[in-house]
Amino acid sequence: MNISILLDFYGDMLTDKQREAMDYYYNDDLSLLEIAQNMDISRQGARDFIKRGEKQLADMENTLALAKRFAKLKAQADELDKAIADIKRSEYGGELGGEIARLEEIAYNIRKNL
Amino acid sequence: MNISILLDFYGDMLTDKQREAMDYYYNDDLSLLEIAQNMDISRQGARDFIKRGEKQLADMENTLALAKRFAKLKAQADELDKAIADIKRSEYGGELGGEIARLEEIAYNIRKNL
Repeated sequence: MNISILLDFYGDMLTDKQREAMDYYYNDDLSLLEIAQNMDISRQGARDFIKRGEKQLADMENTLALAKRFAKLKAQADELDKAIADIKRSEYGGELGGEIARLEEIAYNIRKNL
Repeated sequence: MNISILLDFYGDMLTDKQREAMDYYYNDDLSLLEIAQNMDISRQGARDFIKRGEKQLADMENTLALAKRFAKLKAQADELDKAIADIKRSEYGGELGGEIARLEEIAYNIRKNL
């Protein structure tokens, strides 16, 4: 599992400093030297925050596997969108307007929580 | 959020002893004295495992709110089942057999990950 995704998922469990260093590295694409300068720490210190943070995120996902479950749910939400679009395009699309709107609302609400 | 649900969700993050004590208490409905006897610890020790475990589970949910997101997704999966059943019962139910089967498979796959 991609570290950026795990960071988004479990990042709030990290310390503020770990989170800050990892955000710089994985989301803002800064170098270790830039991170060290921004955080007023050594390059090795920046590296340690990131390495320890990576391990913690990976440990959490190994234990809980929740990011994996959410990824599977996202793939199913995509399938749901496609199935609804196909029904809409079918010859019954017009008559099923109300039911299609209902399915679309459900798909929207599912996606809101993913 | 109900402690049993959080235990199911984040229980793997607890120590083995905490998990054992909490399973006895919340899933098997044992008394503190029975738990103490089963685990060969004092009644106060059993109580401590449970209290600390409860706090840890609540802290995780306060930080991550993942159990809440899954609960919302479960409610949407119920709505999806109802909407599919209504389409099935509608006058187009027969003609839409293939699309309905596809929606049912998606709903089944969503539920598998909840």
